[in-house]
Amino acid sequence: MQEKVSIVKIGGNLIENEAVLDEFIEGFSKLEGLKILVHGGGKLATQLAEKLGIETKMVDGRRITDAETLKIITKVYGGYANKTIVAKLQARNCNAIGLSGADLNLIRSVKRPVKTHDFGFVGDVEAVNAAALKLLLDHQITPVCCAITHDKEGQLFNTNADTIASEIAKAISKDFETHLYYCFEKNGVLRDINDDTSVIEEIDTNSYQKLLEEKIIADGMLPKLFNCFNALEHEVAKVYIGSIKMITDPQTKKTTITL
Amino acid sequence: MQEKVSIVKIGGNLIENEAVLDEFIEGFSKLEGLKILVHGGGKLATQLAEKLGIETKMVDGRRITDAETLKIITKVYGGYANKTIVAKLQARNCNAIGLSGADLNLIRSVKRPVKTHDFGFVGDVEAVNAAALKLLLDHQITPVCCAITHDKEGQLFNTNADTIASEIAKAISKDFETHLYYCFEKNGVLRDINDDTSVIEEIDTNSYQKLLEEKIIADGMLPKLFNCFNALEHEVAKVYIGSIKMITDPQTKKTTITL
Repeated sequence: MQEKVSIVKIGGNLIENEAVLDEFIEGFSKLEGLKILVHGGGKLATQLAEKLGIETKMVDGRRITDAETLKIITKVYGGYANKTIVAKLQARNCNAIGLSGADLNLIRSVKRPVKTHDFGFVGDVEAVNAAALKLLLDHQITPVCCAITHDKEGQLFNTNADTIASEIAKAISKDFETHLYYCFEKNGVLRDINDDTSVIEEIDTNSYQKLLEEKIIADGMLPKLFNCFNALEHEVAKVYIGSIKMITDPQTKKTTITL
Repeated sequence: MQEKVSIVKIGGNLIENEAVLDEFIEGFSKLEGLKILVHGGGKLATQLAEKLGIETKMVDGRRITDAETLKIITKVYGGYANKTIVAKLQARNCNAIGLSGADLNLIRSVKRPVKTHDFGFVGDVEAVNAAALKLLLDHQITPVCCAITHDKEGQLFNTNADTIASEIAKAISKDFETHLYYCFEKNGVLRDINDDTSVIEEIDTNSYQKLLEEKIIADGMLPKLFNCFNALEHEVAKVYIGSIKMITDPQTKKTTITL
């Protein structure tokens, strides 16, 4: 039987609120077994950009990353957010290590091709170094991965954190039973976006098509669900979308994604 | 016989100049055997602080680190400088991993006690996790350590990079033959600060006392030489001060410190 690894992705909206972050860290550190944390930090990056007078340009909810914006992202995701989380986990005896995709050549990516838009220094994942993650996990070390990758030619790239979480889950599924948790500010995929109790408890390939047609799944949920199904199609055992409470309390309402 | 580890510290003045940094990275990546890089980033932190309108306060050449300054340091040292260096090393097939003292609980420190000045979030090193460094080195991984430590209670601290380099060298000297290189913008300890050719090629405990009395060693060189002798007194095999050229070319003039 393969050992279980929980891969938990936490969004930037949760990180920027220290009380919410602390609640999450408390829960995550108590999560039993091997685990990996993946985090964004978009809101914090936007705040620093504003202070520096650098305009944040978004297309389809994705950040256009010019050279100055990449510096901000490296500072905020790779430095401030990552080290703050690692220090908080270490304080709770979780042996965390902060990583970007450049560290240990963990995630190699390629600049997103220019189609309708040039996203700048945005990388699409090409390869995840599963052996490096296995080395750390085998020593009970908890990787804390920020949303930065590299091309192994010296260039760093901004990369979507949801995608990083699913690519990591896929890559280690040969060696481990992987459970992927997407934590965000809602309780799951909602039937009515204004009603936090309208959680859709299960979405499978069939109901997904129907939800798409009904436009219940739209906008930011589209890439998230793409990542969920992509993971399941590549041997990831379980995929969930919900609030931070779901990782510690199995009774918490959440959305379970299945094929 | 113990395996050799080169511990190379590079100052913030060198990092901020990309051409100099690239020259250093090229040399460091070619350095044979196990190695550890320790870096500061002071000038880059001062630049970001200026842009954000945060005043940089120095006492005796040491930065007073208030909460906002600590955020800047975490962003610049832990994020931008560290990840830039790691990506550049990975591009040259050096399997680098960026670390703060919080990662793997690598360096635990305590807030510097308030005597004449309150340095704020500045940490004095208490313990280095030699086992964690050994694990990485045994897997041919090159740690790239930034000048940040933690108290293992969730607080990050700004910590002098020279001190981090000597404490790491001391800690792993039980397991390895450690050679410690302090790279900076000069060719070594100079007899005449305005004459770059006046390198003092060897300093031992006796000549050190004389140089102190003559005030040839003063200001910023005082803590640097304290770190050098401290390392030698704790089983570090060799300690050098000089330019980045010394790590690749043994013929380069430099200062060798001996007991």
